[in-house]
Amino acid sequence: MKKETVLNRISRLREKMDQVGVYAYLILTEDPHRSEYVCDYYQTRRYFSGFTGSNGSLLVLPDSCLLWTDGRYFVQAEKELAGTGIELMKIGEPGVPTITAYLKDHLPEGAVLGFDGNATNASFGMALEKALCDKGVSLSYGTDLAGSVWEDRPPLPSGDVRLIPDSYFGESTADRLLKVRSRMEERGADALFISKLDDLMWLLEIRGSDVKHTPVVMCHALITKKDATLFISDRSFADDVRLHFERSAITLKPYEKAADALDEYVLNAPADARLWIDPEQMSFRSFQIAKRRENNISEPAPTDEMKAVKTKTELEHLRTVYIKDSVILTRFIRKIKGLAKEAAEGKKPSIGLTEFEAGEMLDRMRLADPDCFDLSFSTIAAYGPNAAMMHYKALPEDHADIRPEGFLLVDSGGQYMGGTTDVTRTIVMGALTDEMKKHFTLSLVGMLRLAHAHFLKGCTGRNLDILARAPLWEEGIDYKCGTGHGIGYMLGVHEGPHNIRWRYNKELPEAELVPGMIVSDEPGVYKAGAYGIRIENILEVTELETTPDGTFYGFRHLTYVPIDPEAVDVSLMTPQDVSLLNAYQRAVYETLSQHLNEDEKAWLKDIVKPL
Amino acid sequence: MKKETVLNRISRLREKMDQVGVYAYLILTEDPHRSEYVCDYYQTRRYFSGFTGSNGSLLVLPDSCLLWTDGRYFVQAEKELAGTGIELMKIGEPGVPTITAYLKDHLPEGAVLGFDGNATNASFGMALEKALCDKGVSLSYGTDLAGSVWEDRPPLPSGDVRLIPDSYFGESTADRLLKVRSRMEERGADALFISKLDDLMWLLEIRGSDVKHTPVVMCHALITKKDATLFISDRSFADDVRLHFERSAITLKPYEKAADALDEYVLNAPADARLWIDPEQMSFRSFQIAKRRENNISEPAPTDEMKAVKTKTELEHLRTVYIKDSVILTRFIRKIKGLAKEAAEGKKPSIGLTEFEAGEMLDRMRLADPDCFDLSFSTIAAYGPNAAMMHYKALPEDHADIRPEGFLLVDSGGQYMGGTTDVTRTIVMGALTDEMKKHFTLSLVGMLRLAHAHFLKGCTGRNLDILARAPLWEEGIDYKCGTGHGIGYMLGVHEGPHNIRWRYNKELPEAELVPGMIVSDEPGVYKAGAYGIRIENILEVTELETTPDGTFYGFRHLTYVPIDPEAVDVSLMTPQDVSLLNAYQRAVYETLSQHLNEDEKAWLKDIVKPL
Repeated sequence: MKKETVLNRISRLREKMDQVGVYAYLILTEDPHRSEYVCDYYQTRRYFSGFTGSNGSLLVLPDSCLLWTDGRYFVQAEKELAGTGIELMKIGEPGVPTITAYLKDHLPEGAVLGFDGNATNASFGMALEKALCDKGVSLSYGTDLAGSVWEDRPPLPSGDVRLIPDSYFGESTADRLLKVRSRMEERGADALFISKLDDLMWLLEIRGSDVKHTPVVMCHALITKKDATLFISDRSFADDVRLHFERSAITLKPYEKAADALDEYVLNAPADARLWIDPEQMSFRSFQIAKRRENNISEPAPTDEMKAVKTKTELEHLRTVYIKDSVILTRFIRKIKGLAKEAAEGKKPSIGLTEFEAGEMLDRMRLADPDCFDLSFSTIAAYGPNAAMMHYKALPEDHADIRPEGFLLVDSGGQYMGGTTDVTRTIVMGALTDEMKKHFTLSLVGMLRLAHAHFLKGCTGRNLDILARAPLWEEGIDYKCGTGHGIGYMLGVHEGPHNIRWRYNKELPEAELVPGMIVSDEPGVYKAGAYGIRIENILEVTELETTPDGTFYGFRHLTYVPIDPEAVDVSLMTPQDVSLLNAYQRAVYETLSQHLNEDEKAWLKDIVKPL
Repeated sequence: MKKETVLNRISRLREKMDQVGVYAYLILTEDPHRSEYVCDYYQTRRYFSGFTGSNGSLLVLPDSCLLWTDGRYFVQAEKELAGTGIELMKIGEPGVPTITAYLKDHLPEGAVLGFDGNATNASFGMALEKALCDKGVSLSYGTDLAGSVWEDRPPLPSGDVRLIPDSYFGESTADRLLKVRSRMEERGADALFISKLDDLMWLLEIRGSDVKHTPVVMCHALITKKDATLFISDRSFADDVRLHFERSAITLKPYEKAADALDEYVLNAPADARLWIDPEQMSFRSFQIAKRRENNISEPAPTDEMKAVKTKTELEHLRTVYIKDSVILTRFIRKIKGLAKEAAEGKKPSIGLTEFEAGEMLDRMRLADPDCFDLSFSTIAAYGPNAAMMHYKALPEDHADIRPEGFLLVDSGGQYMGGTTDVTRTIVMGALTDEMKKHFTLSLVGMLRLAHAHFLKGCTGRNLDILARAPLWEEGIDYKCGTGHGIGYMLGVHEGPHNIRWRYNKELPEAELVPGMIVSDEPGVYKAGAYGIRIENILEVTELETTPDGTFYGFRHLTYVPIDPEAVDVSLMTPQDVSLLNAYQRAVYETLSQHLNEDEKAWLKDIVKPL
């Protein structure tokens, strides 16, 4: 984006701010649903700053502009902000204050801070309130000031809404409503307000395309003991969808009316009726309406946990889909390793593909499957030093060529009828150093040991994280991210409430791991300027046995993609590690071979041969 | 105790209850300091019930009496309560309500529940208030009703107070007061009220003998920015103690005046002055006084964490003391294994010692050391099936003979000038089954793996627990207790705030492990009716290295007592487990041999030879 365009947009926003008496205006990258990824309509920060990363907050002051983003985007943001005069605030770097701390220091007494209360989550809004109330700063959050000067703003998405047959869930929306109401009853709630999109998709058994790679439909719901109202933008609903809502006794109302309906409930419900809301997963504006009732239940909606525990039917679909997806990635690995081998033999400097082309090739292979209706996120195909950037994305105009040496890291997944996949393999393109092999082997050992865990019912991811991390910690190495995240079912590729992380935070409740949950297991090594390694399988939590000492859980692999044996240094593994690897490779062959042709089978047999 | 005695005492209490209009009277086993072990003066529940276990709560109603105790004491309580008509409430058994739930169900509307607010902790008192307020039950906690009908009650302890030289701590009471006041300043507290005895001993650098095996002096303290007042029962203080208090600017007042002084502070301090209290570690009575101020800081006192991180000087003393104590236990093991061997060779049915005698022998050996001024708890010497009871205590009148077969479990420790020790070894007396060896080996492997952990700064015990437990969990076995607890310095053998446990409890904050903390590592297997295994070393948290990825911590053994090789089944261990064991055994020899005579050395050399 041109420097002038940005300056012009900001200056129009400043005029508006002046008109309404707003001193400072803050634009987060959020929608009213606290989605991890937001649709174009809510890309306000991108419009006003020109910065295109997925995470950023823009603060417009009378004489300056600042943009906060995280380590993934420092380089990109510097490039994109160049010449605009917007100051880059590198989150987490020494001496860089948080937005709240900056505002506390820099806003004059009595100033007005503006932001769109609709595109700002309630928790952050409350934090602002708390930090700034002493200074007499007032918050003006009722108007989307930036939106009002945004020319040619894209409309709110209104794509097709698809009804997914019950056979993919093993239970109907009516069943799920019943379960939700029963939890409301237990908790003493008379009404439940939900803004979180994946919770709503889970409940409604519909999918859409309002957000890229996350098949959701923008909506809110207000569920009482008797009624369920869905606030959804007016679109052409197919007959089956309309019928489904009717049969499930769900009333449809316009998307924009959610706040009014909440307001009406707040004003008119009996004094002892309790409203269940989740301040972490709703907009500040909705929260300000809801909080006028004093007896609210403020905690995650019951849908959060229900959604995470997949039904038997969902698990059956997931297992099938993960095999299908594993076949695709395995074929991709064979192809790309073939190219690397040819290049090496022919002493060519390139395998004939760039990172970007490799990613596109894999995407085409996935999307060729009739059940794969989207990718689950933008494929990461990162070669050499690029892989050391955890969230690297090769761009058409900026990417590396792949040479027949070192590692190619590929992190990818698809949205299938029957499941969302996510998998990472680090693929050997040619010669490796001993250090590369060591780091690959330690990551692999961590992945296998965690997958092999036996643990008592009641454990959370914090109890288990060290199983994946210990082989690296022993060498003084740590990956600066969690070991695992939950995954949606034909939904977001990141989903709570469970995860596998080690760091203690008394503010964050931890979810127990329960059979039916699925979770990633992805240790790695990131060596800046050199290479990146990540090995990611998705695991299903299963019940192993009940003994006099309790019920024990464990994991089952959903992912069956071979581990590249060329990077394994057996001398760094215990005999048990080696058996775990051999057993996994054997299972890969047994699971995939029926889907492969003879050439592919022969190739795979060689790859998985016992070490 | 005779049945009639108990009945008579209860009936006198009931008369008193009638006189003052108390419907039900509850007697916990507590003192005003929430000590784990309480002195005779507070053994009120024992006096009125005849039950001598360390944990029990007696509820006296007009027509019935109930006593709650935990699984350690079910058998003993049944025996001791027989004929008294007191109903045993087995905590944790299905269908057994908690005290609070029972009271909620059984107290009539508007009844008065009496208890001694001085010997009931604030948290429990608040829970009672909360549970019973709906029923209009009122709490009468101002009078020690039971105490008023207790004939020949032992006096409050008034034993000698010993000043421990600074050289044992490396810092003075004045230094510690300075640190405490600096934390108060940081936290915005103007005054700090402490009832917790070990925190006070840490601060004051004195020790006493008011509680068995825990060298504390009963007192409270109120510390403000300028003054420090110690409330301590009148005793003959030696000159050095009196001088120490004077020099440290500590004012002495009578023990009984603590509540009045707190009351005075509450009434007279400026409105914005904040009082720091810990409702978990103070009496309900003190709390009721303190809570009249609305701006209290309610959290653990700063002394809690400071005490846990031992100073360099304390660590040096601890290392020396643990070696000394290890020599004693090693000599005991040699002796008792010698007796077992002789008995086996002579085909005798007994090794010639009972559990009770074995424990007494070890106690004599420890107390013969001039620096050992007490045991740190009653020695557990448990043979065969008795060891399956985790807190078994052999009694002069009830104990098992030791036969030349199976396991003898010995858990013991001493209070030394320079440290409190705690160690458990499971000693082979003769033939073992394969299962016994397996369970011993898995416990050993867990102990060694946890001790070998490398972990990032920021980890708590919950991150590490699985390292000790995994070998057992893989076999469907669990020990129903934590893996480790902190240990005091010439203080309580159990000390927080850190521990090594796995179970998540969002109410309980977790303490990070920090270099200078010491912690036990004690996995085991308890097979009811058959045998018990526990292997316990004490570990010191140390800093291992700082790499670009962070600062890594680990452990160092403080305990150097050989592992009995006769119980080790090497075939169940990985090569790394075997190296850990061999390295530990070698370190035992290297550390102890200079303190042993030639015969002992030869014996130890054989015991520790590499497997």
